[in-house]
Amino acid sequence: VEIRLGQLAADTGSRLVGDAECLIRGVNTLADAGPGQISFLANRGYRSLLAHTRAAAVIVGEADVDAVPCSALVSANPYLTYARVARALAPDPQPRLGVHASAIVESGALVDPTAEIGPGVYVAAGARIAAGAILGPNCVVGEHAEIGAGTRLVASVTVLHGVRIGCRCVIHPGAVIGSDGFGFARDGTAWVKIPQLGGVRIGDDVEIGANTTVDRGAIKDTVIEDGAILDNLIQVAHNVEIGSQTAIAGCTGISGSARIGRRCTLAGGVGLVGHIELADDVHVTGMSMVTRSLKEPGVYSGGFRALPHDQWQKNVARFSHLDEMARRLRELEAQVAALAARS
Amino acid sequence: VEIRLGQLAADTGSRLVGDAECLIRGVNTLADAGPGQISFLANRGYRSLLAHTRAAAVIVGEADVDAVPCSALVSANPYLTYARVARALAPDPQPRLGVHASAIVESGALVDPTAEIGPGVYVAAGARIAAGAILGPNCVVGEHAEIGAGTRLVASVTVLHGVRIGCRCVIHPGAVIGSDGFGFARDGTAWVKIPQLGGVRIGDDVEIGANTTVDRGAIKDTVIEDGAILDNLIQVAHNVEIGSQTAIAGCTGISGSARIGRRCTLAGGVGLVGHIELADDVHVTGMSMVTRSLKEPGVYSGGFRALPHDQWQKNVARFSHLDEMARRLRELEAQVAALAARS
Amino acid sequence: VEIRLGQLAADTGSRLVGDAECLIRGVNTLADAGPGQISFLANRGYRSLLAHTRAAAVIVGEADVDAVPCSALVSANPYLTYARVARALAPDPQPRLGVHASAIVESGALVDPTAEIGPGVYVAAGARIAAGAILGPNCVVGEHAEIGAGTRLVASVTVLHGVRIGCRCVIHPGAVIGSDGFGFARDGTAWVKIPQLGGVRIGDDVEIGANTTVDRGAIKDTVIEDGAILDNLIQVAHNVEIGSQTAIAGCTGISGSARIGRRCTLAGGVGLVGHIELADDVHVTGMSMVTRSLKEPGVYSGGFRALPHDQWQKNVARFSHLDEMARRLRELEAQVAALAARS
Repeated sequence: VEIRLGQLAADTGSRLVGDAECLIRGVNTLADAGPGQISFLANRGYRSLLAHTRAAAVIVGEADVDAVPCSALVSANPYLTYARVARALAPDPQPRLGVHASAIVESGALVDPTAEIGPGVYVAAGARIAAGAILGPNCVVGEHAEIGAGTRLVASVTVLHGVRIGCRCVIHPGAVIGSDGFGFARDGTAWVKIPQLGGVRIGDDVEIGANTTVDRGAIKDTVIEDGAILDNLIQVAHNVEIGSQTAIAGCTGISGSARIGRRCTLAGGVGLVGHIELADDVHVTGMSMVTRSLKEPGVYSGGFRALPHDQWQKNVARFSHLDEMARRLRELEAQVAALAARS
Repeated sequence: VEIRLGQLAADTGSRLVGDAECLIRGVNTLADAGPGQISFLANRGYRSLLAHTRAAAVIVGEADVDAVPCSALVSANPYLTYARVARALAPDPQPRLGVHASAIVESGALVDPTAEIGPGVYVAAGARIAAGAILGPNCVVGEHAEIGAGTRLVASVTVLHGVRIGCRCVIHPGAVIGSDGFGFARDGTAWVKIPQLGGVRIGDDVEIGANTTVDRGAIKDTVIEDGAILDNLIQVAHNVEIGSQTAIAGCTGISGSARIGRRCTLAGGVGLVGHIELADDVHVTGMSMVTRSLKEPGVYSGGFRALPHDQWQKNVARFSHLDEMARRLRELEAQVAALAARS
Repeated sequence: VEIRLGQLAADTGSRLVGDAECLIRGVNTLADAGPGQISFLANRGYRSLLAHTRAAAVIVGEADVDAVPCSALVSANPYLTYARVARALAPDPQPRLGVHASAIVESGALVDPTAEIGPGVYVAAGARIAAGAILGPNCVVGEHAEIGAGTRLVASVTVLHGVRIGCRCVIHPGAVIGSDGFGFARDGTAWVKIPQLGGVRIGDDVEIGANTTVDRGAIKDTVIEDGAILDNLIQVAHNVEIGSQTAIAGCTGISGSARIGRRCTLAGGVGLVGHIELADDVHVTGMSMVTRSLKEPGVYSGGFRALPHDQWQKNVARFSHLDEMARRLRELEAQVAALAARS
């Protein structure tokens, strides 16, 4: 793909400074960009790289435009403008029409003729694959599952029976959608499996990372709303609800029936216990454990920063006597009060 | 499936109140159930929903039976009775006989004629697939591996050579059983891989969640005993032993040669270091790190609850001076003792 | 495989004590070894097992040779010698030549005739599979990806377009290499996906565990250097760089653009925030969160040890008042100083 800089400015609503006719063929970093490439300055810590960039053009904010030694696209949000420019230069993969000879589509499945069913794919009876959807190599789609228009299962994705996925989603390799929730009742000491009869409902424009797992509901559905984005290796248990535009980083685990609001962010390695509720606009920092509902928007934390081992161990040793320290402190306060009264 | 309520009462050993002839076709929540559906009250916090339920029948404990506006199954353990009723109404999938045309079964593999070998499955030489086993789409079973009677590999499961899995197990998509343990010796600064020559032995009635990994042993086997249940995205390292009826929640990591007793529970995100031993009936709460053997039954914890960020940061800042605080406290105690002696 | 003990001594540079002609057919533990088997003593805690071993030979250090009741290989590093002996007795799998009938190799892919392309494998156009490489069942290799000589994708591995993997690597089942990095820009409250245009570059002799995910770079490549070893269920985000000979244990998450030096070790469940740098020879203990660059070699920690629940809860309760305790301590110090001045 080659696009003239003037066209990129028009398409992204940014102000052009310099040569509108310049042909842009790709993106690169400020340090490495060369002819035909466009770069961007989103983090002003890298501002010193501007002077020496060999990029054909740079996307910058108004405050930095004077420092640009080449053409520029000036934008209130250079990172967003970069995203749009990069998408124009590297468009999403388009479906190759039809069903690969090695794929198995059961009779009773409905596959739109504009969808791509890749090699080694299995589509079970009753499944529906909408227009422009792409099922990459070795994906599995279970009975009566629905894959929305323009949604892409990149490769080796497993979508189980009855799962409904909206439009324009991207599901990365190894993701499993609709596995049984972890539901068991006790019969004495033995576990009796509770059939997981709900499904999974995923909205439009959702991204689900590699090897992430989303369990089906026990009775009702597990729900991921429009525009939510999930990174790799996340566990979403049964009957979880994730609000629209919420972003969840890798290695996070969300226990059953937790409800997460809209526009929340969970950083990496966070854990949520079950049956709690997070309000809209709640932000949880890395490796925190959330054990109660968070009803107010805001930032919540529960992780410790690693320290040199000896220093950490000393504080941990003190921590294990914290209750005793508190009691000694109270005792001292009493003694000092008595001394003060006497003197 | 349709079953008369009287039949469900008889099959689950619960007391019927109301219409034995009523046909039950499915389950639902108290709030959403309608004609032909049965619901349950296991958590008395939802008791207020009983009055308005439109369910045909409700499973309750003796204490709540008077509040039920419809037929009831009365049980000492309503959740367990619900599990049994739901299993009766939604029975496990039964194998479709035979080998799908797209599956590859190497000569020298033994597949019972009542087993189902799904599309895209690979069964290597010497493997044995017992009666009524189901290998869902795109599963792989390695050389000389054994899949017991009635066990189901749901889809996209990888079982490596020599792994032995018992009867009536369910292995969810993306699970990997029998990958090499993480064993390396140092040669100067270089790592030399140690061949992982043990296997994995899994008992009967074991459940293994989506994208969970169970490594093969270095010399002896990794072992998961009868009736253990594992959630999604769990790491089980080489030579781990997990006792029967133990339940492990998602995102937990168990290091090499750890031995976990029977009827234990590990909550989500727990980590165990290697070569330790957990007694029977040990329960570890969420995101705890277990670094020593726990020889007594009981509940163990090591996780912090997330707090509003500012509050958390203040305490964390103090924590990093905890050793200093302890020394200042001791100093004060000495001073106060001296003052008290003088006055 | 059968090898004479004298040959094993010569091949591993260890000193033979005893019968050079003895045929060794396998390895086993000290407790379980029998005729034809060799064992080893690497952890002197097991020294008492030496006296009763029925092994044909034992690998030991100089200090333990007198306690060996059978033949011995004497080595400065018995564990390393064991690794070499075990590798000789259980050599790596060799490729079965050629492309399985059920595999799909697109025209334009280059597959060396000595490579093995297993059942159900998909190799996309432009991919290159070098001599002696093994692609096990149901693996996927994307367009223009490169798999180096002697590298083995065990089974169900997904390697995406343009990823380059060096020689003699082992990639375990379910691993995903080259999935999109988690890069999004905000447009108001909506997320706009940033195309992930970099690749992944993996050196020689790298091991990547089951269900581990390695994301492709945003612009530049994600890099794993020669001889690095990664366990199962690890998340490696976009543009991470991992130095040679670094070892990373399971369930660890590494955020975007983190740079990890050479010969580092990260224990299980560790988390690294993005854009930080770890020097060579940094060692991080289990479940620590690293939030700042660690510029000095050494050991760093941030995890707590699980305690009996009541004891833990008491300390946690005090922790949440730590800031208040610190203020009370300072107040007391002032009062005591005043009292001391007065008396």
